[in-house]
Amino acid sequence: MRQVSIIGAGMTKFGEHWEKSLRDLVTEAAVKAVADAKLDGGEIEAIYGGCMAPGLFAGQEHVGALIADQLGMNPIPSTRVEAACASGGLALRNAYLAIASGAYDIVAVGGVEKMTEVTTEQTGVILGGAGDQEWELFMGATFPALYALMAKRHMHDYGTTEEQMAACSVKNHANAVHNPYAQFQRAITIDDVMKSGYVADPLKLLDCSPITDGASAVILCATEKARKYTDLPISILASSQASDTLALAHRGSLTEIRATKVAGEKALKQAGLSQKDIQAAEVHDCFSIAEVMAIEDLGFFKKGTGGKVSANGETALNSKLSINPSGGLKACGHPVGATGVKQAVEATVQLRGEAGKRQVSNLKNFMTHNVGGSGATVAVHLFARGD
Amino acid sequence: MRQVSIIGAGMTKFGEHWEKSLRDLVTEAAVKAVADAKLDGGEIEAIYGGCMAPGLFAGQEHVGALIADQLGMNPIPSTRVEAACASGGLALRNAYLAIASGAYDIVAVGGVEKMTEVTTEQTGVILGGAGDQEWELFMGATFPALYALMAKRHMHDYGTTEEQMAACSVKNHANAVHNPYAQFQRAITIDDVMKSGYVADPLKLLDCSPITDGASAVILCATEKARKYTDLPISILASSQASDTLALAHRGSLTEIRATKVAGEKALKQAGLSQKDIQAAEVHDCFSIAEVMAIEDLGFFKKGTGGKVSANGETALNSKLSINPSGGLKACGHPVGATGVKQAVEATVQLRGEAGKRQVSNLKNFMTHNVGGSGATVAVHLFARGD
Repeated sequence: MRQVSIIGAGMTKFGEHWEKSLRDLVTEAAVKAVADAKLDGGEIEAIYGGCMAPGLFAGQEHVGALIADQLGMNPIPSTRVEAACASGGLALRNAYLAIASGAYDIVAVGGVEKMTEVTTEQTGVILGGAGDQEWELFMGATFPALYALMAKRHMHDYGTTEEQMAACSVKNHANAVHNPYAQFQRAITIDDVMKSGYVADPLKLLDCSPITDGASAVILCATEKARKYTDLPISILASSQASDTLALAHRGSLTEIRATKVAGEKALKQAGLSQKDIQAAEVHDCFSIAEVMAIEDLGFFKKGTGGKVSANGETALNSKLSINPSGGLKACGHPVGATGVKQAVEATVQLRGEAGKRQVSNLKNFMTHNVGGSGATVAVHLFARGD
Repeated sequence: MRQVSIIGAGMTKFGEHWEKSLRDLVTEAAVKAVADAKLDGGEIEAIYGGCMAPGLFAGQEHVGALIADQLGMNPIPSTRVEAACASGGLALRNAYLAIASGAYDIVAVGGVEKMTEVTTEQTGVILGGAGDQEWELFMGATFPALYALMAKRHMHDYGTTEEQMAACSVKNHANAVHNPYAQFQRAITIDDVMKSGYVADPLKLLDCSPITDGASAVILCATEKARKYTDLPISILASSQASDTLALAHRGSLTEIRATKVAGEKALKQAGLSQKDIQAAEVHDCFSIAEVMAIEDLGFFKKGTGGKVSANGETALNSKLSINPSGGLKACGHPVGATGVKQAVEATVQLRGEAGKRQVSNLKNFMTHNVGGSGATVAVHLFARGD
C-alpha cells in the first residue's frame, strides 16, 4: 500500500448557521482546505464526502455529486459515504484506500451536516436512524436514552459518578475556549453540568453534544508527492475500521464499545505504536459517558477508571494525555457527518504546531476516534508530522 | 494496483416483496453469493453496501453496520456508499479499490433497496432527492419529468420517435422472459407501450422502470487468490466513475450524459479495449430514453441514432450488441441501490455461460453502466472470463 499524507485542511466555524445551506458550508470548508494545500483545484482527482442524513434533514440525497457540482469540479468522481456519526471517518478512510491503491494521487475529503433546518423533535428521530430503527427507535429509544443505559451500567459496575462524567464536559469546554471554530467558546463548571436539566437520567443537557451545522475538509496526497505542495505534510500512519451490532441490546457488554477496541488495536498495530506513543487524541464524546468509555476502550486507561482519571485532570490539555484539544463534540460541536473529518483537521493543526493556546506540547503522534451510532461503526486514524 | 476478480454472485428475485424487510433481502442475496463463492463467511474481510435512501424509505440510516450485523459478521468493517441509483456501482468500485490497495483480499459487495413501504407519491419525492432538491424537486420536477425533457429534446434534434423509444422496453421485456429473477417475466409489444398512459409526455408508463424491492451481492477477491475458490473467476478489467452537475438545467446538453462519456472512455482505456471488443452490456435504462442515450454516449452507436438502432433490433439479444440481457431496469426491475450490483451479477452469470435462454453467445467482454440521478454520477465496469 502507498503511504498517504494530509497536505491541506480547513473547516467552517461549527454552530447554528441559519444563513448558510449545506452547499454553502461544504464550499467554505473545501475552499479553505484547497487554499491551505496551495494547489490548483484542477489537480484534485476525486472527492469523498461524509454526510449522515441529508435526505431526512433536507430531502437531498446524492450529496457526493452535489459537492463536485457546487465546487465546479465535474467530471471527477465524487462519492458519499455514510455511517451515521462516523460518516466523516469513513470518508477519510476510503479516500486513504483510494490513494493507497494507486488510483489517485490527490483526493479531497469533506464532511458536512446541516442539522438546524428541522425541529429538535425531528432531529431526535433522524439521529435515531443511526441505531436500530426497528428494535430501538421504534420503541422510543433515542440516542440520549441509549447512552444513558451505558452510563447507568458503568456507574453500577465501576462506581463512576455523574460528577466524574461532568468533568469530561468541563474539560472540553475549557479547551474550546481557545478554538475559534468551536460552537461554544466558553468555560463551564461541574456545578453548571450538575444543575443542567436531565435529558435521559443520568445524562444532563451539558453531558450531551449539541445540534450543529458545519463542514470540514482535508486534502490527501500520495506521500511520495506531498513535498511538492507543503514543507510539512502530515502522515497518516494508520487507518482502521470495525463494526458491532446496530442495537445495543445485542451486545455482550453495555460498558465497552467493542468496535473501538478492535479498530484501536488494529490502528496501533498498523503504525507499529502502542498507547504510550500517543500524546493527544480526538475521541468521540457525543455524550460524556462516551468519552469515559473511549479512553478505556482505546487502551489509554484501565476499564472502569475513565471517570476517575477525567475528574483527576489526567486528560486535560498537556496533562498525561490531551483528550479532545479541539473541545470535542461537546464543545466544538457535532455536525454529525463533519465530525470525523474535523478530527483530522484538528490533528493537522496540532501536528503543525498551529493550535495556539490549545496547542499540545511535545506532540508526536495524534489519534482520532470516530463512532457511528452507539458503536456499530468505529474508525480510528493515526497521524504524525513529516513523511 | 492489484487485479480484482468476482468469485461469487447472488441476488433475490426483484419485485414487490411485501413479506420481506430490507434485512431479509440483504441476507438472502449475501447468503447466495457466499455459497456461490464456496467460501466460509469468516474469510470475508470487509463489506461495501450500496443503498440510496433507507432513511427516507424506512427511517434507518447506518445500513453498512446493519448489513454486517444482520449477517453476523461483526467486527469487520462495513461501509455504505450512496450515489442515488448509482449507489451499487460505487459500492462495487470502492470495494474494488480497497482490494486493489492491498488492504483486503476478500470483500463482499451488496446493493439493496426496500421501496414498497411508502406510497407512490412519497416514492416520487424520495427519488427526487437524487436530483437537485432545491432547483428541481422543489419546483415539481420529478425524475419522469427530467427524463421527459431529455426525450423531447432528443426527438427534436434527431427525429427520435416514441415508437423507437418503446422498442427499448419491448426488447428488455423480451429478455426478461428468460430471467427467473426479473420483476416482469412477460413480453410486451410496441402497441402495449404506445397505449400505456403518459407519465410525463413523451414518456409513458411502459417507458419507465418500476418501483422494486430487491438485493444483489458479489464477492470480490484479489485475482492472485481467486483460483483458490473457483475454476472460473470473472476478472474486473476496469472500474471508472465520473460526475456531472446535479441539475439538468446546468448542463451544456440535454441529449447526452457527459459523465457516461467520461466514465465509458476511462474504463475502455484502463482495459485497453474499444467498443468493438464489447459483446454485451447492462446499461442504465431507468427510462427508455436513458437507454437510447446510453448506447450513444458509451460510443456503441453514433449520437442521434440510438432510437433507430433500437427499433432495428441491433441491440436485441445476440444481434450486433446485446443490451440489457437481464431485462434491464425496465423489466428486471430497479431497486435503486441494488441495480449497480445486480448488473455485476448479470455480467458474472453471462460470462460463466450460465444465463440459459438469455445467454449471449461468443461473449468475451461485458460492460456495466450505472447512472445516479439524471446523470450526475456514472460508474462503468468491464468484466471478462478468467484471470
